[in-house]
Amino acid sequence: MAKTKVVVTRQLIDEAQRILDVKKEDLEVVQWQSEKPCPRSWLLENAKGASGILVMLTDKVDEELLEAAGSQLKAIASFSVGTDHVDRNALKKRNVRLGYTPTCLTDAVADLTVMLILMAQRRVGESMTKVAKGEWPQMPWHPLLMTGPQIRGSTIGFLGFGRIAQASLQRLLPFGIKKVIYLTSKPGKPVKEDHFGLITNATIPIEPAGSIDQLAKESDVVVVGCALTPDTKHLVSTDFFAKMKKLAVIVNIARGPIIDTDALVKALDQEQIFGAGLDVIENEPNIEADHPILKQPRAVLVPHIGSATIETREQMATESVKNLLAGLTGEQMINELEL
Amino acid sequence: MAKTKVVVTRQLIDEAQRILDVKKEDLEVVQWQSEKPCPRSWLLENAKGASGILVMLTDKVDEELLEAAGSQLKAIASFSVGTDHVDRNALKKRNVRLGYTPTCLTDAVADLTVMLILMAQRRVGESMTKVAKGEWPQMPWHPLLMTGPQIRGSTIGFLGFGRIAQASLQRLLPFGIKKVIYLTSKPGKPVKEDHFGLITNATIPIEPAGSIDQLAKESDVVVVGCALTPDTKHLVSTDFFAKMKKLAVIVNIARGPIIDTDALVKALDQEQIFGAGLDVIENEPNIEADHPILKQPRAVLVPHIGSATIETREQMATESVKNLLAGLTGEQMINELEL
Repeated sequence: MAKTKVVVTRQLIDEAQRILDVKKEDLEVVQWQSEKPCPRSWLLENAKGASGILVMLTDKVDEELLEAAGSQLKAIASFSVGTDHVDRNALKKRNVRLGYTPTCLTDAVADLTVMLILMAQRRVGESMTKVAKGEWPQMPWHPLLMTGPQIRGSTIGFLGFGRIAQASLQRLLPFGIKKVIYLTSKPGKPVKEDHFGLITNATIPIEPAGSIDQLAKESDVVVVGCALTPDTKHLVSTDFFAKMKKLAVIVNIARGPIIDTDALVKALDQEQIFGAGLDVIENEPNIEADHPILKQPRAVLVPHIGSATIETREQMATESVKNLLAGLTGEQMINELEL
Repeated sequence: MAKTKVVVTRQLIDEAQRILDVKKEDLEVVQWQSEKPCPRSWLLENAKGASGILVMLTDKVDEELLEAAGSQLKAIASFSVGTDHVDRNALKKRNVRLGYTPTCLTDAVADLTVMLILMAQRRVGESMTKVAKGEWPQMPWHPLLMTGPQIRGSTIGFLGFGRIAQASLQRLLPFGIKKVIYLTSKPGKPVKEDHFGLITNATIPIEPAGSIDQLAKESDVVVVGCALTPDTKHLVSTDFFAKMKKLAVIVNIARGPIIDTDALVKALDQEQIFGAGLDVIENEPNIEADHPILKQPRAVLVPHIGSATIETREQMATESVKNLLAGLTGEQMINELEL
């Protein structure tokens, strides 16, 4: 009997590779061996006859790929939280299951959220640049030199209040924040899921905002943590920034297009807001050195490293392999997307 | 009757200036009006006949200044946490009181400590530089791209375990750290002051280290938070780094000379440790653009902004003025240093 074929578009991290390797008696594993993404042509060619494909978020899963694979394909396992790269309808039509890894990066992203808030408030991009340029000797000390707002006493406004936002809040509580407001798709309504018991055991007010305007006006820190949908694209734009406090900062750990970049640059330029901390940005990774956001001293931009911890990536790899194997045998995946 | 003379070496922030201004009926206030430090000659000239002097940490308080002021001088109020710029013996000899502002910056520095830990672990200096240079489009995504160690599960080692270190720990607890060890001047002995009840109510082990070697070997994160004394100068040097874990990071929020900079550069260069986050460094602020630490991609250096929040600096200014006024009338200062 021919072995079941699986295609894996990347070399995996140790533990995940081991789980796959022990199955090699039963499986024919075709694996791309470089650190760089596999060419589309390689994937299309090798997908032929595969029962399962483990993909990265750089690999598009569409009609073309499913057609190239053939009708025996049972499962796609995506090494990712988002599934924007996957045509869900195409999978549904062919009855192919989709595994993904949405939960294991909560800690890593929540950690980065706290870091970006503090970096935006404490003018860290600005001051690191001055030091790197050798300007420290020419910065005479005075009482307000390089000062920014302090997080103690802040009202934190969450745009989107899911697991990652709540994990961020959990970390922010001992910093002495005063109040939390959040906006979901149902303004004014309490959020259903209280992932860490923070709302049940609240020691400060944690309340739904009645409107996006209220969130913009009252927050000292705005955390963008919602999903990207047609409704949330450019949800944060000129209007929103105009209503924000002059000493407020905004952090985006979700998806770039939720914030209108031109409006953000203008708001920073005109000092309508104090600063910004971005893990994501529109049109990433195509951000050239002359991009206007990079000219804003009060903006911090890191290259989408929210989930970039060794532990998280190891866990994502392991879960992806387990999802792939479960997809072949019809067992339960760790996380499967309803199509 | 002549008014009591006070000298203030800097323009103060609003609230502090107001407290001073309402006393102008009784006081002759001579105040330096620029954002830059006052020249030494201005201070020596104007000190003559002063009963109190409010100084910044850039103003040296020594025999020369006290001599210039005269025997009516009752108090120095220093707008600072440290008092390295003050000759305490000279004050004692003349029975001049010394006020300072050691407590109000705890929050600001503890916030920065958490930020620097995360920046060192998550390779933020390195990734910001790549983005600024326009390298993001050429960074092909792979599972270990820009990954660093995750703070969950870490052992945090505190060199010095006073108020700021404990406030930092308070913030770190919800990040899921596993264990805390600390070294004070009495190795193996429990610390006396439990400023925030963290030890009393501990949910993870918080234990004194038996030796500096143990701290170096066991910590995933080392936080340097002790005072600078002859004993702590270069306490962290080649030996210490050699014993640290390869994935460990070190953060210095205390004083530069506690870490031997050459040894740190070497440890980073040879990948003996994973990264460093520095708010202070030897010979600051004289750090030129070609300083070797600035060539280390895994080192983050900010220009001593630990207490640089608007709220903290306002409080330091207000407390300094109150200390000055209390010094004139013989009342209790908010914080007075035993001479």
